[in-house]
Amino acid sequence: MPVTLISFEEAYKKVLSHGQDYGTETVTLTHSTGRVLAENIAADRDFPPFNRSTKDGIAIAFEAINSGRTEFNIQEIIAAGVPKSKLNNINACVEIMTGAVLPDGADTVIMYEQVIIENGRATIAKTPALGQNIHYKGGDEKKGALILHKNTAITAAEIGVLASVGKHEVLVKKVPKITLVSTGNELVEVNESPLPHQIRKSNIHTLSASLATIGITPDKLHLKDDEQEIRKALQKALQENDVLLLSGGVSKGKYDFIPSALASLGVEKVFHRVLQRPGKPFWFGFQKELGTVVFSFPGNPASTFANYHIYFKDWFNKTLGVPIPKIEVVLKTDIDAKGDLTRFLRANAQLENGILMAELITGNGSGDLTSLVKSNGFIKLSPKNEVYKAGTLVPFVATRSIL
Amino acid sequence: MPVTLISFEEAYKKVLSHGQDYGTETVTLTHSTGRVLAENIAADRDFPPFNRSTKDGIAIAFEAINSGRTEFNIQEIIAAGVPKSKLNNINACVEIMTGAVLPDGADTVIMYEQVIIENGRATIAKTPALGQNIHYKGGDEKKGALILHKNTAITAAEIGVLASVGKHEVLVKKVPKITLVSTGNELVEVNESPLPHQIRKSNIHTLSASLATIGITPDKLHLKDDEQEIRKALQKALQENDVLLLSGGVSKGKYDFIPSALASLGVEKVFHRVLQRPGKPFWFGFQKELGTVVFSFPGNPASTFANYHIYFKDWFNKTLGVPIPKIEVVLKTDIDAKGDLTRFLRANAQLENGILMAELITGNGSGDLTSLVKSNGFIKLSPKNEVYKAGTLVPFVATRSIL
Repeated sequence: MPVTLISFEEAYKKVLSHGQDYGTETVTLTHSTGRVLAENIAADRDFPPFNRSTKDGIAIAFEAINSGRTEFNIQEIIAAGVPKSKLNNINACVEIMTGAVLPDGADTVIMYEQVIIENGRATIAKTPALGQNIHYKGGDEKKGALILHKNTAITAAEIGVLASVGKHEVLVKKVPKITLVSTGNELVEVNESPLPHQIRKSNIHTLSASLATIGITPDKLHLKDDEQEIRKALQKALQENDVLLLSGGVSKGKYDFIPSALASLGVEKVFHRVLQRPGKPFWFGFQKELGTVVFSFPGNPASTFANYHIYFKDWFNKTLGVPIPKIEVVLKTDIDAKGDLTRFLRANAQLENGILMAELITGNGSGDLTSLVKSNGFIKLSPKNEVYKAGTLVPFVATRSIL
Repeated sequence: MPVTLISFEEAYKKVLSHGQDYGTETVTLTHSTGRVLAENIAADRDFPPFNRSTKDGIAIAFEAINSGRTEFNIQEIIAAGVPKSKLNNINACVEIMTGAVLPDGADTVIMYEQVIIENGRATIAKTPALGQNIHYKGGDEKKGALILHKNTAITAAEIGVLASVGKHEVLVKKVPKITLVSTGNELVEVNESPLPHQIRKSNIHTLSASLATIGITPDKLHLKDDEQEIRKALQKALQENDVLLLSGGVSKGKYDFIPSALASLGVEKVFHRVLQRPGKPFWFGFQKELGTVVFSFPGNPASTFANYHIYFKDWFNKTLGVPIPKIEVVLKTDIDAKGDLTRFLRANAQLENGILMAELITGNGSGDLTSLVKSNGFIKLSPKNEVYKAGTLVPFVATRSIL
């Protein structure tokens, strides 16, 4: 039975066209790290909110300098956190601390290093410039200015801005509810001793760890290769989740019940099998009525890992409205990848003199145990009748933070 | 009073020389993501643990092909997860699923696409190659082989390997216990409405979010500018923590009680004030008796943020035994950074045709509110009497994941 496989580009486009909007929710500032902002953030006051001294020293009226004065009576010491004071007269100065409010009447700050203080008087050693060492009210941002945009990923730097403008609670994008489903009678738990014909579950742990880095704690489900059990469990999972990530049970074997079970549960098959390696038997579907998106990955580790990063992560970024990272790397060696498949080759990308160079990690096929830990992503090679030459720029799918 | 400032290189070296070893602890596999492995991991069995079919199809003895046979009696169907079977004779075949154990007597797998199955017999359409579609026992790794090294950062890919070899519990490096200390009478809580001369706390939240990305949940402490209060609170904090990260109270103001309080508590000042901008008033010390390391950052946001990433993160990587990332970027424009200071300039580094190019983010001095959200790191410029020309390769300190 001939099957028409879909090209990688077409498959990718179809997956991204099933982006959903999962709405918004309010979380505390502390819990907003790693989330995506769902509101525009404006400055709630001028920043700085007052004329602020940027040095420890004395504040004076420059007019006094103009009239030739170099010695000033110290009126008081002004610390940060003290209400605004007022210079009594142009012959007076105040000692002022970094972060303190410049008093009315003062317009210039001279740092301690350029002042001699003796008997309640300050003598300046060097003529200052008018207005020096002052960070002016509203100099950074005016009240009402848009300072953070909706759809921004919140990292430590954004947390600082949110804190400054009083966002104790932040409106963020909701993330989809996800269940991971593993299948296969050969799989046993990590803490079990497998019999000679068994292996331990790993994909479900890899996927769970991957989702943790994007702020999702998935539920987990394991299904034996039993048609009835699979159907019943998937029915419940489709109802209770926004997304299912399955691994295994989608190749051409007699016990690969997943595609038929999903079809019987109203999940429209968007495509099954892609002209790519690894990850060719990838099955992708959508349950319109429930709005559930189903990524059903082949069972071997490299395939699941590749498909997760190639399809799911970009889909996820799209649903949240954040840009999809585009990375390109320079090949270190010639690569022959002839044929009609889009190839995703395990590689290690490293900066060399500012250039991101990628070296192939030669693995032992898609079941290889350790090649994924030696690589930090996949180079993507589209089908081409010539060898990809060293020095060529090719797309790269990162599987961990590489810089 | 002239103060001898320390060079950036010297300060950096001194900080890193205070790397500590905080020991190890055992965590469950699920909780090991983001941690650093403290044990070598060996394969607990051969990988794959058996001769494994990589296709759905039939398994035969190649000897039969040699003798001209193209038709086989189907003896049974072998699923993944079923104990090893045995080919009854060389005229027989088994239907075999991906991941299943190759039966004794069989040595070649032919995929369904190249077989016609009718009336309990399989006819092959194409002559196979001996040994095809088999992933041999131990072909990836032999039992006992070292597959993950101590000091490896655990990401999703490593989780897959740990699961495969049965590491339900993992020995990881302990992380230091950290308290964040903010100081300054001008600071109010994020959910408060500041008076005109007050500002909201932000550094403590930025640092807390930064630490969260490296798996640390710090305690938080705020101190008013009161010498007695500061001394008492720091004494307790020094005893109860491995590391203190302070922000504020270390410049030359009258109320900057931190250095003297730390000195009186037996914290040896390793250095105070560095020839760098931002972050010049950085104070670094060590309480030998207690083993507590003290990073005391200047209070303005850019200084704290810069010093955290420049000093603390590298120090932290060193204590855990993981490599310190070295990133270099290409300048997009000329930069004039003359003077005797090492400059850390806010910049945005982006890949352009495989080259990591950095563009300056022009901020408004170290108190600027939003320049840190527009940048993804700092370019580092050592003191030099010439302009740094566009195209020059310079070091870069990333402040978020940039690729």
